[in-house]
Amino acid sequence: MNSAAIILAAGKGTRMKSELPKVLHKVLGEPMLNHVLDALEEAKIKRKIVVLGHGAKEVEEILHEQIEVTYQKQQLGTGHAVMQAENLLNGKEDNVLVVCGDTPLLRSETLTKLIESHKENQATITILTAKVDDPTGYGRIIRDENGVQAIIEEKDANVGQKAIDEINTGAYCFKGNFLLSEIVKLDNNNAQGEYYLTDLIKKAVSQNLKVDSYIMEDHIEALGINNRIQLAEAESILRKRILDRLMLEGTTLIDPLNTYIGKNVKIGQDTIIYPGCILEGTTSIGQNAIIGPNTRIINSEIMDSVNIQSSLIVDSKVGSGCNIGPFAYLRPNSVLEDNVKVGDFVEIKNSTINKGSKIPHLSYIGDSVVGSKVNIGCGTITCNYDGKVKSKTVINDGAFIGSNTNLVAPVTIGQGAFIGAGSTITKDVPEGSLGLGRSKQKNIDDWSKKS
Amino acid sequence: MNSAAIILAAGKGTRMKSELPKVLHKVLGEPMLNHVLDALEEAKIKRKIVVLGHGAKEVEEILHEQIEVTYQKQQLGTGHAVMQAENLLNGKEDNVLVVCGDTPLLRSETLTKLIESHKENQATITILTAKVDDPTGYGRIIRDENGVQAIIEEKDANVGQKAIDEINTGAYCFKGNFLLSEIVKLDNNNAQGEYYLTDLIKKAVSQNLKVDSYIMEDHIEALGINNRIQLAEAESILRKRILDRLMLEGTTLIDPLNTYIGKNVKIGQDTIIYPGCILEGTTSIGQNAIIGPNTRIINSEIMDSVNIQSSLIVDSKVGSGCNIGPFAYLRPNSVLEDNVKVGDFVEIKNSTINKGSKIPHLSYIGDSVVGSKVNIGCGTITCNYDGKVKSKTVINDGAFIGSNTNLVAPVTIGQGAFIGAGSTITKDVPEGSLGLGRSKQKNIDDWSKKS
Amino acid sequence: MNSAAIILAAGKGTRMKSELPKVLHKVLGEPMLNHVLDALEEAKIKRKIVVLGHGAKEVEEILHEQIEVTYQKQQLGTGHAVMQAENLLNGKEDNVLVVCGDTPLLRSETLTKLIESHKENQATITILTAKVDDPTGYGRIIRDENGVQAIIEEKDANVGQKAIDEINTGAYCFKGNFLLSEIVKLDNNNAQGEYYLTDLIKKAVSQNLKVDSYIMEDHIEALGINNRIQLAEAESILRKRILDRLMLEGTTLIDPLNTYIGKNVKIGQDTIIYPGCILEGTTSIGQNAIIGPNTRIINSEIMDSVNIQSSLIVDSKVGSGCNIGPFAYLRPNSVLEDNVKVGDFVEIKNSTINKGSKIPHLSYIGDSVVGSKVNIGCGTITCNYDGKVKSKTVINDGAFIGSNTNLVAPVTIGQGAFIGAGSTITKDVPEGSLGLGRSKQKNIDDWSKKS
Repeated sequence: MNSAAIILAAGKGTRMKSELPKVLHKVLGEPMLNHVLDALEEAKIKRKIVVLGHGAKEVEEILHEQIEVTYQKQQLGTGHAVMQAENLLNGKEDNVLVVCGDTPLLRSETLTKLIESHKENQATITILTAKVDDPTGYGRIIRDENGVQAIIEEKDANVGQKAIDEINTGAYCFKGNFLLSEIVKLDNNNAQGEYYLTDLIKKAVSQNLKVDSYIMEDHIEALGINNRIQLAEAESILRKRILDRLMLEGTTLIDPLNTYIGKNVKIGQDTIIYPGCILEGTTSIGQNAIIGPNTRIINSEIMDSVNIQSSLIVDSKVGSGCNIGPFAYLRPNSVLEDNVKVGDFVEIKNSTINKGSKIPHLSYIGDSVVGSKVNIGCGTITCNYDGKVKSKTVINDGAFIGSNTNLVAPVTIGQGAFIGAGSTITKDVPEGSLGLGRSKQKNIDDWSKKS
Repeated sequence: MNSAAIILAAGKGTRMKSELPKVLHKVLGEPMLNHVLDALEEAKIKRKIVVLGHGAKEVEEILHEQIEVTYQKQQLGTGHAVMQAENLLNGKEDNVLVVCGDTPLLRSETLTKLIESHKENQATITILTAKVDDPTGYGRIIRDENGVQAIIEEKDANVGQKAIDEINTGAYCFKGNFLLSEIVKLDNNNAQGEYYLTDLIKKAVSQNLKVDSYIMEDHIEALGINNRIQLAEAESILRKRILDRLMLEGTTLIDPLNTYIGKNVKIGQDTIIYPGCILEGTTSIGQNAIIGPNTRIINSEIMDSVNIQSSLIVDSKVGSGCNIGPFAYLRPNSVLEDNVKVGDFVEIKNSTINKGSKIPHLSYIGDSVVGSKVNIGCGTITCNYDGKVKSKTVINDGAFIGSNTNLVAPVTIGQGAFIGAGSTITKDVPEGSLGLGRSKQKNIDDWSKKS
Repeated sequence: MNSAAIILAAGKGTRMKSELPKVLHKVLGEPMLNHVLDALEEAKIKRKIVVLGHGAKEVEEILHEQIEVTYQKQQLGTGHAVMQAENLLNGKEDNVLVVCGDTPLLRSETLTKLIESHKENQATITILTAKVDDPTGYGRIIRDENGVQAIIEEKDANVGQKAIDEINTGAYCFKGNFLLSEIVKLDNNNAQGEYYLTDLIKKAVSQNLKVDSYIMEDHIEALGINNRIQLAEAESILRKRILDRLMLEGTTLIDPLNTYIGKNVKIGQDTIIYPGCILEGTTSIGQNAIIGPNTRIINSEIMDSVNIQSSLIVDSKVGSGCNIGPFAYLRPNSVLEDNVKVGDFVEIKNSTINKGSKIPHLSYIGDSVVGSKVNIGCGTITCNYDGKVKSKTVINDGAFIGSNTNLVAPVTIGQGAFIGAGSTITKDVPEGSLGLGRSKQKNIDDWSKKS
């Protein structure tokens, strides 16, 4: 089957009160347009043509290469928007979907069912509809025994029509050749002077072509985002979908209402997520881990049995059995091998820490390679920047770094070396040696009386 | 128009289980009484007379100067409470509102509509009423074609009256001269021996004066707080009002159910607030900022395009483009000019940091003035307190402070000066000079074998 | 009265998708089985016999000594499970309850009422039932004028029976001698080849013994946990019960939906809990404290008027008037006497801090005894570990520790002694003396030009 989709993404979204084009507002960390494109991709719609208008340049920047674009310079109605895609269609498309770029809750399963229904019923147009308790404001679906006859807008509906609870969601499946031949014939002879896509229904009916509807199971999927209250609502619904899936797959969430997990995050069985966690991007977490509370992890790989409290981890890797936080910060390119401890008030940046090493508290390790079974005393700082260049620190296996030590890079601490507390180390310390760089203590008696 | 309001705030609030007078319990950081007074002020009621009783002294302390007070020494009923305000009224008030001090959800719009309805219908008394699904326990509004005839309490109601779903909310608008002349005539000839304000309705009806009701749109506004479950409920409703308004004005809230913003906080367009944020007091935030997660900001001014993660900011100013946290703490009187970085585990107190300076990690800057483009190394500490006095540190433009430096105040670091890592600086460092205060390193070979 | 209970806890819980036996999954920090056992204990059921199966060994480990166990090696139905307990019963039990180990919401009040109803109505079997809006899938309770006649499972129910809204919750009260004599007579002559406990109802009815039901007030109590969505739901309901109780007792919760308090936590009157707090174990908190936001406290004793922001406290004691955080970490065996300040980025471990001492920022105090009115400067570190042993630091009353000091343990700082900023202290400093261990500063002019 050869399907294409036209995604309407030209609107400004005035009620968003934003400088950003509406379809770029994010839901679960992704522009809402991407959610629509993902659903189409999952529904195996190969060609995806986005109609751009307001903020076209900014929207274009976030699109994958395979996405095609066309431009609607003036916003003259939905029919006009689809017209702009006409020259990209070649008439060989069996079906052409038209969907709105501001409906991020639309699921691929629903799109697939729409297409299947379209084919099974040999329809020329199939409208994606929903049944709602209160249809006020929506276009109503008018049927007779042959199928759908028309969509009547609220303002044109009589009392009987207003009572109809099947509504138009604004998504459609068209036979490709019908759309291609008829879209160019739309006119704007109406009060608003706009080209209405729904006029194609009249054209199909007048040609005795079948117009059908597919009623979606859960009308919330059709929610179009017009303001930020709806944006938050969509975020909440999408979040619940992900969290329900994760729970059914074997992740414990102490409070799903206070847990934020992106759609590409993977979590292993028997991992427990405490409240206040935000897991984003391509993050993966192993089994039997305990994450949170209040832990944010972005694009990182966390292995089994890790425990992370109240920390921020970005673009990093954390090996099995590591213990992190509370209040730790792993900046990009931090790699912790298995069983590493990174404790409270510790920052790691662009460094590798090998197995079983400990950095328990109040330290900064940057641009470093730390061996295995190294003990880094409290207050240790790698002085990796001299105001001009950043240099590297190497601490070999089994070294012991005393508290409050400054390691002025570039510098290497040998295997099993020992650094006295309070030292500033500016040159290498050989294997097994003691490095010391501090003054002798002296006491001045009865100082408090004199001072 | 000349309106006054009497606010009943003498009750103890036994079910609050508290040492604090009920009306001082806070909703969104403000005593609930203040929410009522604010609504009256917004409804342009000039004179506000608070009837004090339990905890009168504590309540009086939080009142603005313009608020008048009167004392109800014994709690002998609502009529008795209003009697205590009688000597403050002069008969020239067109309308006198009576409202409860424990109804923080009452909106000024509703009070304005109550007064308008009162005037339009030329009523002597207008009762603020609500329609509810379950009226059990409330006073029911009894009407005939002339208006309200009586309020029947639950215990006195017959079956037909119990079915009435219009209830008394306990707020009223009275004609001033009627209230003044009749309040003094109330008696306590009843089982409880109390003076009931609602007896005035009988008096008006018996004088063929019009008693009317104004039915509020959302009965939740009349919620009176009697225990801390209701207090939390009021907090949640008031919070939602504010958050809905902010979202409609152009702020993105990732999760409104986990965001806490006070009613005097201002936020610019396209700013994004992550979960777990608490914004309080007179805080303002500019446009395009990213705040949170888990950031608390109290009485501070945050400019455009600022990014603040997991930090606490109190009584401070943060310039455009600043980057703060995670895990930073700005204590009172911190001023960050534009594009300053205050990173992880950094405390700033009573200091000004000029444009483009960086304090990336594990530092304490107190009682200091830091110039522009200064780099403060990790672990830098301003030693501003010698046990007796607090002194000032000045770091001039472009200085570079090496890691783990102690700046023993009072001390000045000259423009472009450089401080070696691990130094304790006790005297000034001239412009362009190197300041160093540390020991030379020595290594003792094979120490690990000997020790 | 002599009651026993048989708790069915042998199931695997396949839909939990877990290596952990189902009944060990935690609700509010406690295995769900413990919640059931606690409810039985509160209902004064002395003997509690747990039927173990899947993961018997792991489950047995968490049981108190007084709990009896029996093993169901194969899972051949509920009747078969109860058979395994038969040899532990002696026929002297007046009543034997049978309850499921995966129903953590069951309250002791409900169990007590079940038993009372059983006795009052002289029933042989009393089924704990519930009325639900949608009974689909549950066993329906069939009655006539003599009482319950049968439980009909969904698949066997006719249309009329399907409409019955009283359902079996899976908990029962049996006369002891009836259960003992009849349980052994159950057969498995049915399609599944299982022994059904509900077959005992037929036996009782055929013997003209009374079968009754007790309809629980809130059917949610019977919720059985079969997957982690239900686990989160149970957690949320149990949490609300605790929070509602605490609020009615006089604790203010800014947002009960974002507050996590275990069932054994005690909180004094007028204490305020900010959002994001997790209070666990046997924690107690005094009056007038302010806790949070985002504070986690485990098994700790917090006295009156304490203020704790964004901190983690484990197995510690905090005296009245202490001020902790933001971003502090009290590890096990930290004892703060009254009015101690532990500020931002401070870790305390296994130490006692006496009255009125201050550790305002960026410090680590471990294995120490700190006297009263001591001032510990920013960046102070107790170097308690030399790579081999942990040693003790003693700081006597009124000492002043300058910033960025290393106290190399074992070491004692005398009363009123003063340590210069940036010192490494390796030997004792006598009372009233000044201890200093740092280099003299030297400046190299015009260094920035040369370098």
